[in-house]
Amino acid sequence: MTSEAGTRRPGRRPGNSGARGDILASARELFASNGFDKTTVRAVAARAGVDPALVHHYFGTKLQLFTASIALPVDPRDVLAPVYAAEPEDLGRALTTALLGVWDSPHRDAAVAMFRAQIAGGDSGLIRSFLLEVALAPLFERIDRPVGTGRLRAELVATQMTGIMLVRYIIGLEPLASMSSEQLVEIVAPTVQRYLTGDLPGM
Amino acid sequence: MTSEAGTRRPGRRPGNSGARGDILASARELFASNGFDKTTVRAVAARAGVDPALVHHYFGTKLQLFTASIALPVDPRDVLAPVYAAEPEDLGRALTTALLGVWDSPHRDAAVAMFRAQIAGGDSGLIRSFLLEVALAPLFERIDRPVGTGRLRAELVATQMTGIMLVRYIIGLEPLASMSSEQLVEIVAPTVQRYLTGDLPGM
Repeated sequence: MTSEAGTRRPGRRPGNSGARGDILASARELFASNGFDKTTVRAVAARAGVDPALVHHYFGTKLQLFTASIALPVDPRDVLAPVYAAEPEDLGRALTTALLGVWDSPHRDAAVAMFRAQIAGGDSGLIRSFLLEVALAPLFERIDRPVGTGRLRAELVATQMTGIMLVRYIIGLEPLASMSSEQLVEIVAPTVQRYLTGDLPGM
Repeated sequence: MTSEAGTRRPGRRPGNSGARGDILASARELFASNGFDKTTVRAVAARAGVDPALVHHYFGTKLQLFTASIALPVDPRDVLAPVYAAEPEDLGRALTTALLGVWDSPHRDAAVAMFRAQIAGGDSGLIRSFLLEVALAPLFERIDRPVGTGRLRAELVATQMTGIMLVRYIIGLEPLASMSSEQLVEIVAPTVQRYLTGDLPGM
């Protein structure tokens, strides 16, 4: 904790890469706990110990700061690499494991912040792109069986996994909020597998 | 449209029960489309064609107006009556049918408004009470098998159904948003049934 900080001056930090990282970490924490609308650039700056002008200098608008704060910590294609490589009958477990692996990691704040902002703002463009165009695109051909069902299958998975985001991380209902990732994967993976590859009535 | 309105004066309406209903309907629409924080008493009054003072006179604070706007249209115990009466092996279908029945009805705005406000505000007390203390209490003994699992079972159902609320009504992903209630019940009921009464790994 001190080896890196030893070269910094106390109080407000100069505009170096350390301050940039502090701003992003502060933004993630505040977006996650308060949502997009209630988080101000001034509050992010105060938490990071910098001047608000420095936040604007590095990141531009609050929305650009938000985008940077969710984009940096993890590339969804890296997270989903084990899913792309999984056997068909293991897709549900692989996907559930990958998502809960991120959500139960230090990246949780960034993930929750993105989720909350989309819900509160009512602008679904970003989460829609994320879910359908970035995260699930490489999976699409594998789950589009019979042809034409892939999009609905992905959306059904989204209903289950966004609901877990909500109940486990945002509402925080116990005991589900505190149970281990491993046990939750065991319980939820069969649902996700059925939505991805199972027979769905009427389709 | 004109038969009822014929007895009213044009412009701002007098403080009668018609205005009260108009205020509630306007509140439901605005809370549902804009969320709790972005909805003002002034905007609700303008939409209902009344003075903001009349809104305060009838309903008190914005939170009290919100509570009234979600409390009036439907009693959850009425909605869930068919679930309380269902055979154990039909609980998943009965519960899914009951919830989608409300969400696909004219009560949708009130349900979405409550949901959005809870997520945006970060205050989970109301939705928590609603889910666990009001709506699911009469079901609890029936799903608490083995004893001690009932609460987690209810929360797992909440992950699936809140995710449907989100993907179908708020984000509005197609084709899931436009598919019939009946088909969605067929697809989702087995998941809900498993969470309510099935064997869950580790439990």
